[in-house]
Order: sequence, then C-alpha cells, then structure tokens
Amino acid sequence: MKSGDATTINIAETSGGSKGKAAAAPTIVATTKATKHAAAGWKRGIAIFDFILRLFAIAAALAATTTMGTTDQTLPFFTQFFQFQASYDDLPAFTFFVVANAIASGYLVLSLPFSIVSIVRPHAIGARLLLLVFDTVMVSLTTAGAAAAAAIVYLAHNGNASANWIAICQQFDDFCQRISGAVVASFIAAVIFMLLVVLSGLALRKH
Amino acid sequence: MKSGDATTINIAETSGGSKGKAAAAPTIVATTKATKHAAAGWKRGIAIFDFILRLFAIAAALAATTTMGTTDQTLPFFTQFFQFQASYDDLPAFTFFVVANAIASGYLVLSLPFSIVSIVRPHAIGARLLLLVFDTVMVSLTTAGAAAAAAIVYLAHNGNASANWIAICQQFDDFCQRISGAVVASFIAAVIFMLLVVLSGLALRKH
Repeated sequence: MKSGDATTINIAETSGGSKGKAAAAPTIVATTKATKHAAAGWKRGIAIFDFILRLFAIAAALAATTTMGTTDQTLPFFTQFFQFQASYDDLPAFTFFVVANAIASGYLVLSLPFSIVSIVRPHAIGARLLLLVFDTVMVSLTTAGAAAAAAIVYLAHNGNASANWIAICQQFDDFCQRISGAVVASFIAAVIFMLLVVLSGLALRKH
Repeated sequence: MKSGDATTINIAETSGGSKGKAAAAPTIVATTKATKHAAAGWKRGIAIFDFILRLFAIAAALAATTTMGTTDQTLPFFTQFFQFQASYDDLPAFTFFVVANAIASGYLVLSLPFSIVSIVRPHAIGARLLLLVFDTVMVSLTTAGAAAAAAIVYLAHNGNASANWIAICQQFDDFCQRISGAVVASFIAAVIFMLLVVLSGLALRKH
C-alpha cells in the first residue's frame, strides 16, 4: 500500500461529483494501513519469542545429547571374561536417542538465521513455512528418540516379569539416573518444538 | 470486497479529472478479486485433501489400536504355577501405545466436522488454527506411542546381551509379528499427522 494510491483517490475526490461516497475511500486506506502496521508489530513479537524459544530448545537438546552420550558406568567388579560396563551404545534405542537429539541441535543452530529473517521481515512467508515444515519433522524426531529411550529406561528401572527381563538399575544406579535426566531434557525439547510449530501457524495466518 | 466499493471508484473515475491515474483503480480491484477467488479454490483443494488424509489416518490409527489391543498369544504348554501368555498389557509401553492410538482415532473422528468447515469456508482461520494445534499434539502422541512400542519390539526380537534381556520372540512368534504390524500402522498415522500440520500451515498463509 504505497502512498501514491491514496493520493490518486484524494484527487478523484476533490474533482469528483459524488462527495459522500468518494470520501469513504481514504478512510478505508487509513484503516488498512493501521491494521498492517499492528499486524507487523504483532508478528515481530511472535518472531522474537520464536527466536528465544529456539535458544532454550538448543540448550535442552544439547543437554540431552551430551548427558546421554557421555554417561557410562563401570562396575567395580569383573569376572574372568568381561567387565560390567553400561554405556549408551549398548542399547540401540539410546544410540537413536543420541543421534536424534544431535540432529535436532544441529538443525536448531541452522534455523536461527531463518528465525532472524522472520524478525527483520515479519511478512516473509517463505522462511516461516520452511521453519514450520522442519519444526514438525523435529517434533516427531525428538519425541521418537525420547519415547524409545523412556521405554527402555522404564524397563531398566522396573524390569518385566512376563518377559523375564530383570531390572538393571539396581547395579547401574548412577547410569540410570543420568539417562533419565537426558530423557526429560529431550521431552522438554520436543514440547518447545511443538510450541514453535504453533507459533509459526499463528504468524502465518492472515488478518 | 463488496461490489459497492468498485461502483464508488467507477463513479469517481467518470466524474473526476485526472483520467490516467484514476483508471488504475478498477484494474487493481479486478486483480484483487481474481486473486481472492483463485486463493479460495486453492485453499478448498487443500481442505479436501486434508479431509481425505484424515480418513486414511483414522484407518491407520484404528488398525494400530485394534491389532495391538486384540493380540494375545497363549503358549501350548504351562508349568504348575502359571500359563505362558503374551498380551499387550504385560508391557506398559504397549498399553501406552494402545491408549495413544485410541486417543488419536477418537480425535480424528471429532476433527472431521472442522475439516468440513474448512472445505465449506476456505478462509475460516479459527477451524484451521484449532486443527493445527491439535494435529501437532497428535504428531507427538502417536510418534511417542509408536517409538516406545518399537523400542520394546526391537528388544523382543533381538534381546540385549549387555542387560541380559532375552529375545522372547522365539516363543511368542505370532504375537511379535502382529505387534510389529501395529507399530508400522502407528508410524503411518504419525506421518499423515505431519502432512496434516504442513497442509494447515500452507492453508493459513496469506497471499
């Protein structure tokens, strides 16, 4: 809405005959302009909130990755054949957890420039849609990693009588506590991703 | 954009002085109108596609729920104390899987009217945003259920030497095959939910 358009209608009004009807045109222009400015400010607010949430998500995803990836516990006794040791790569679900959260952390860092673009240009649709699509994929990825790890952690804590699986947390107590923390951090990252998707939806809607 | 606005500008044009500038106004109105109609048709197409995807998602989620919920296998031998039987409620991850997919099925049926509203009124924002928010939650719920069950199914198939968990699928072969199918169906439902979120994002963007 350039100012040139408004000028055109003003000229038409002063020179035209039907005064009452033509006078309505500038009013409409003014209202549209004000709404657009308010919408831009509101969308900029959403974009800034989006950026801050991404920083928190990076912290949560990195915490989950590093906690899970660096935890291993070696028991102070060993048999003739092997030493008792628990590490994340003993269980495929934990390996997937580390990979999923590492991918999420990397994506979040790469998404920061696009988030900044959304702050600078609140009406840019492309960056928003791109973030929406990838955030949705990341909701799925982090939730899948967290849920798979949670299922195994639950099993490690409680065991299962039907399947004759014993609880290993009695031996690997420190290991179990740390991986439980990692799972919680990953679920927090997943919730933040869900908020980001909803924020993108809010920013995309037209007024 | 009522036709009354266009008439106003036409009157101003015929009676006004600066012909060249004022003549641009009806052209703009016409273009805006055409774009709006095209956008409505395009959004209606998205809404219809959304509706069809929801039907597929209901089929996938219901299949996952019923397959997991109705599968139990009783082995043809038993000891003095108990009979060997495998059912979904032996493992908390499978119970969560059934609950998550049942909730997803119920939500999908309830969401169909809102999807129809989006077909009838392509520019309605409220129904779209509501679907976007709940679809995002459902992406997370179905993925979590499927991933947790997948982690346990993997363990049932392969066991784990480090944790001394034995593979139970050698005994419960039929049970394992059916729950694997249920997990696949649930992942299909999760992917459809992700498509629905992206479709809502596309439908929400302004032109």
